[in-house]
Amino acid sequence: MALYVLDSTILRLCHAQADLRIDGEQRKVDVCLTRSVYKTYGHGYGPTQGIFQSAATLSRQIPTPSTTHIEMPEPIIFYDIPSQGTALKAWSPNTWKTRYTLNIKGIPYKTVWVDYPDIEPLMRKIGALPTDTKANGAPHYTLPAIYDPNTKTALAESALIAHYLDKTYPDTPRLIPAGTAALHAAFTQAFFTVLVKALLPITIPATADHLPPRSEAYFRATREVIFGGPLQELAPPGPKREKHWAEVKKAFATFAQWLQADGVDKPFFLGDKIGYADVTVASFTVWIRIVLGEDSKEWADLKTWDGGRWVTYMDAFKKYEYVDAGEAVVL
Amino acid sequence: MALYVLDSTILRLCHAQADLRIDGEQRKVDVCLTRSVYKTYGHGYGPTQGIFQSAATLSRQIPTPSTTHIEMPEPIIFYDIPSQGTALKAWSPNTWKTRYTLNIKGIPYKTVWVDYPDIEPLMRKIGALPTDTKANGAPHYTLPAIYDPNTKTALAESALIAHYLDKTYPDTPRLIPAGTAALHAAFTQAFFTVLVKALLPITIPATADHLPPRSEAYFRATREVIFGGPLQELAPPGPKREKHWAEVKKAFATFAQWLQADGVDKPFFLGDKIGYADVTVASFTVWIRIVLGEDSKEWADLKTWDGGRWVTYMDAFKKYEYVDAGEAVVL
Repeated sequence: MALYVLDSTILRLCHAQADLRIDGEQRKVDVCLTRSVYKTYGHGYGPTQGIFQSAATLSRQIPTPSTTHIEMPEPIIFYDIPSQGTALKAWSPNTWKTRYTLNIKGIPYKTVWVDYPDIEPLMRKIGALPTDTKANGAPHYTLPAIYDPNTKTALAESALIAHYLDKTYPDTPRLIPAGTAALHAAFTQAFFTVLVKALLPITIPATADHLPPRSEAYFRATREVIFGGPLQELAPPGPKREKHWAEVKKAFATFAQWLQADGVDKPFFLGDKIGYADVTVASFTVWIRIVLGEDSKEWADLKTWDGGRWVTYMDAFKKYEYVDAGEAVVL
Repeated sequence: MALYVLDSTILRLCHAQADLRIDGEQRKVDVCLTRSVYKTYGHGYGPTQGIFQSAATLSRQIPTPSTTHIEMPEPIIFYDIPSQGTALKAWSPNTWKTRYTLNIKGIPYKTVWVDYPDIEPLMRKIGALPTDTKANGAPHYTLPAIYDPNTKTALAESALIAHYLDKTYPDTPRLIPAGTAALHAAFTQAFFTVLVKALLPITIPATADHLPPRSEAYFRATREVIFGGPLQELAPPGPKREKHWAEVKKAFATFAQWLQADGVDKPFFLGDKIGYADVTVASFTVWIRIVLGEDSKEWADLKTWDGGRWVTYMDAFKKYEYVDAGEAVVL
C-alpha cells in the first residue's frame, strides 16, 4: 500500500448547498469549491475560517499491485462526464487529463459516461475514494475516476491516476518521471493560481450551455451558488469579459516564460517530451477550444499568442485526443 | 547569448515612493512590491490596473561563455545585504538562495556587503541588469547579484544566477537538472503563493530590527509604504500573529505533501538530492531562524511540524551555511 496525499490545490470546500429539481424530485446538493476559487469568487458566504478541512483528513491509501508488471488483458474503465454534443462528448478539463494520460500511454480503456447527479452513487458503488471531504464530514466524489479490472483498483483524481498508471504500467510512457513528483505537485498549485481563476468566468458559463439537461441543471445550480449569481453574468461580451480574457492571455505568456526559464526555449515542460504538466495545460486549453468553439473569437485569438506557440503545442496533442463511443453508466 | 526571461513571480511593482532621510539628505525612494504582495497587502493605493509592467519588458540577455569549461581561477564576487549582527551577517532569503547555491557547488567566492541604499549605484557600476522595471520605466535593481571575473559577467536574481552557474561550471552539482527548468519556474510561483504571503507580516518587522541603521531606515520607509503602516502592527503578539503563523504552518504542511506526491516520501524536491526548489525552501526557513532567533517560540514550533521533518531538512543544509567575513562595498 502506498500513501497518497492530495495536495492543497485540490482541497475543496463544501459548505453551501444548492436547491435543485432533478429526476422529478427536489434535492439539496452540496456545493464544493477550491479554496482558491472561494477566495476569488466566494460571494455571500460567511467567514471562511475554520471551514476548510485539514489536509490530513484527505490522506488516502491506494493499493499498489504486488507485481511490477501487469499484463493488462482487460481494458480500464474510464469514467467521464458527457457533453450534449455527439461530435466530441468529452469536454471536462479534469477528465481530459486522464483521457490524455491513457491515450499517451496507449493503455486500452473504455469510457463510461456519467452525468453529474450520478457521480456520487457510482463512486460509492465501485469503491473509489472521495477526493474531498464536505464541511459536514461526509465524503465528496469527483471525476475523473478509473476502475482497473486487472488490479481491481478504483481510483479518482487525475494526478493520483497518473501516478498509479506510471507505477502499474511501467512499460508505457512515464508522465511524472522520477525526481519530478514534488515539482509536478507544485506545478498544479502554480497552474491554478496563474490560469484557472482567470479562466473560470469565461469557460464555466460556456460549459453549462454544453451539457445535457440533467448535468446542466446540476452544474448551473451548484456553480451559481459558487459564483454568487447567474452564470451568464460572469463574463458577458464587453469590458468584463475582455478583462478576464486579458488575464488568460497573461497566464499563457507566463507558461511560455517558464518554458524558456533556463534560456533555451523548450516545446514541453520536461523538455522534449510531454509530461503531466503539459497534459494539464493541454486539458484546459482543449476545454477552451471545445466549449467556446474552434470558430470563436477567443480561440482565434489564443492561436496568435506567444508567437503562435500554442498551435504547435496543441498539435502535438492531436494524436492523443481519441474519444471512444463508450457507453452510458448503469447504476 | 542566451535569452533569460524573468517569470511573473518576480515581477515587481514600483509605483509608490517613500520619503527617507539618509546619509544626511532627504530622498525619495521608489517602493517596489510583487504583484502578489500588492494584492494581499497593497493598502491605500490607487487602482492596480495598468500599472504593472509587461513581462516582455523584463526579458534580458546574459552572456553564455563560449567555452564549456571555465577554470575558475578567481573567486566570484557575491553581493549580499548585511544584518547588524556580527555572528551571522547573512539574513536575506533572496541572497541566501545564491549563498547556498555557491556553497553547494563549492565555487570559491568572496562576499561584498552592501547596504540597501548602495544597491542601485553598485549595480550600475558593475553593469548588472536590473531585475525589475519601475512604473516610470526606470530600471530597478535588487540583490543577490554576482560578478564572475572569470567570464566578466555581472548578474542579478537568484534563479538566473543558479542557471548561469549550472551552465558555466558544469562540473559542480547541478541545482536545476535538465528537464526541470520549467517546473522549477512553476515551483517559484507556487512557493510564493503558498508560503511567502503568509510569512511576510511576521518576518518583515523582525528583519527591520535586524538591520544596521542605513539599511533599516531604507527598509522601514519602503516597507511601511508597501504594508500601509508601521511594521510592528503587522503581526503583533496575539491573535493576528497566530493567524499568520497558522498559515505558515499550513504552507509547510503543503510542502510536506508535495514531497510525498507519488506515494513515497522524499527528503528533497528532486528526490534524494538537493535542488533549487529546496534551496528556496531552506533560504526562507533560515530567514525565519535568523530574524526570529533560534530561541523564539516560532522556531521551537516549526521544529515540531510535520513530524519534525524540517529539522532533518535544515540539518542537510547546515554544511552549506558558510558565511565568509567578506568586506564592505566600496562605491
